[in-house]
Amino acid sequence: MTGWVVVAGLGPGSEAMVTPEVTAALEQATDIVGYIPYVARIAPREGLTLHPSDNRVELDRSRHALQMAEQGRRVVVVSSGDPGVFAMASALFEALEAGPQEWRALEIRVLPGITAMLAAAAAAGAPLGHDFCAINLSDNLKPWALIERRLRLAAQADFAMAFYNPRSASRPEGFARTLEVLRQECADARPVLFARNVSRPDQVLRIVPLDQTTPDMADMRTMVIVGNSATRVIDTPRGPVLYTPRSA
Amino acid sequence: MTGWVVVAGLGPGSEAMVTPEVTAALEQATDIVGYIPYVARIAPREGLTLHPSDNRVELDRSRHALQMAEQGRRVVVVSSGDPGVFAMASALFEALEAGPQEWRALEIRVLPGITAMLAAAAAAGAPLGHDFCAINLSDNLKPWALIERRLRLAAQADFAMAFYNPRSASRPEGFARTLEVLRQECADARPVLFARNVSRPDQVLRIVPLDQTTPDMADMRTMVIVGNSATRVIDTPRGPVLYTPRSA
Repeated sequence: MTGWVVVAGLGPGSEAMVTPEVTAALEQATDIVGYIPYVARIAPREGLTLHPSDNRVELDRSRHALQMAEQGRRVVVVSSGDPGVFAMASALFEALEAGPQEWRALEIRVLPGITAMLAAAAAAGAPLGHDFCAINLSDNLKPWALIERRLRLAAQADFAMAFYNPRSASRPEGFARTLEVLRQECADARPVLFARNVSRPDQVLRIVPLDQTTPDMADMRTMVIVGNSATRVIDTPRGPVLYTPRSA
Repeated sequence: MTGWVVVAGLGPGSEAMVTPEVTAALEQATDIVGYIPYVARIAPREGLTLHPSDNRVELDRSRHALQMAEQGRRVVVVSSGDPGVFAMASALFEALEAGPQEWRALEIRVLPGITAMLAAAAAAGAPLGHDFCAINLSDNLKPWALIERRLRLAAQADFAMAFYNPRSASRPEGFARTLEVLRQECADARPVLFARNVSRPDQVLRIVPLDQTTPDMADMRTMVIVGNSATRVIDTPRGPVLYTPRSA
């Protein structure tokens, strides 16, 4: 039996956003590896072993996947959203580079998914309709000074901005600092989208002017999108629509 | 009959990357509106009218979609990739905002898709594995000076960068200028990915150090991704893997 590793994106939550190629890989797998809540999305079946693991063990998980593939298993590493955006694909390649030379002969494929910022943007309108950036606000693996520098330069470049991991219990102060930096660099009325549980039945969207934002509007399950200077809100009977014109 | 407009992302080309919710919307549609090559991806069937139109008529196409929905039609506006990333969603909301008040009561939904940068990144490894930006290099709707400013600030922020619309017959010089700016701001060895016809059978990937890039390496069908200062290439028997570590 020839083993392989597929790093697959499950999208933000809705099964209707899982691509057919990801569904096909899951059907062919012998083993599923991933963070507990993502593995919980995979239906158990005969011949399939689920290997849920905790957060912050991405390298262990990657090595485990590569070892199993070397033994002939067909392993899918599952990520929420897209595996290449602040998720498992980079961790897997870090493990590959540092690991035994034999691993490099393995078949490894990355299958993209709907990343949270695209689902959040679509649910609210089109706030990422022109040039934008994506920033991971977690300072687990990089210093806060680098995050702050990127925020300031992104604001000066007038990018719309999508923030992943805005706030966690272990880093309650980072998002407050982020909002402070944005208030120094951007106009008070700049619209900010807080999109919680995107694409799930309990999805909640809020659009708030920058000067009325507070740190507690975001948690680990929230995607934050800050418009650029041209981003607009259209009022409709069905609710506000947030979008960035194509000329922005 | 109650009409609606869905703006749907078809992904970069492979049918295996079209999400089930987009497939379902296409099955319910009475009318498909979009740029000729994207509408050509939709199979004709009884009860479905295809309305292909040329490039650069995005506002006309949007108004047509909204008018048909007002008349009770179920209209899908198709975009390649994700409709919210340099595609039809912003154009539709521009038309909505400028149009008659009645249009605002219409049901309008945006369904996300796999945008080209995510598919290109997945095919090459994980070059967008840490903070990154997406820039549309077309100067049809914005001045070149703004593009250049964003390029310089993005390089200074040490973002990985994804470039859409790098080069067209009508703007042959823009991408040459882009490479000049990057050479001024980034190291010679910075890896650049040229991904042509991503996810299609004729997909071609090239990874080239910045100082060996030439403008003719990109055309309209090419997605260009520039790594950040930490982006690495792993040599494997199956070809090079391009990735950005999570600490970058």
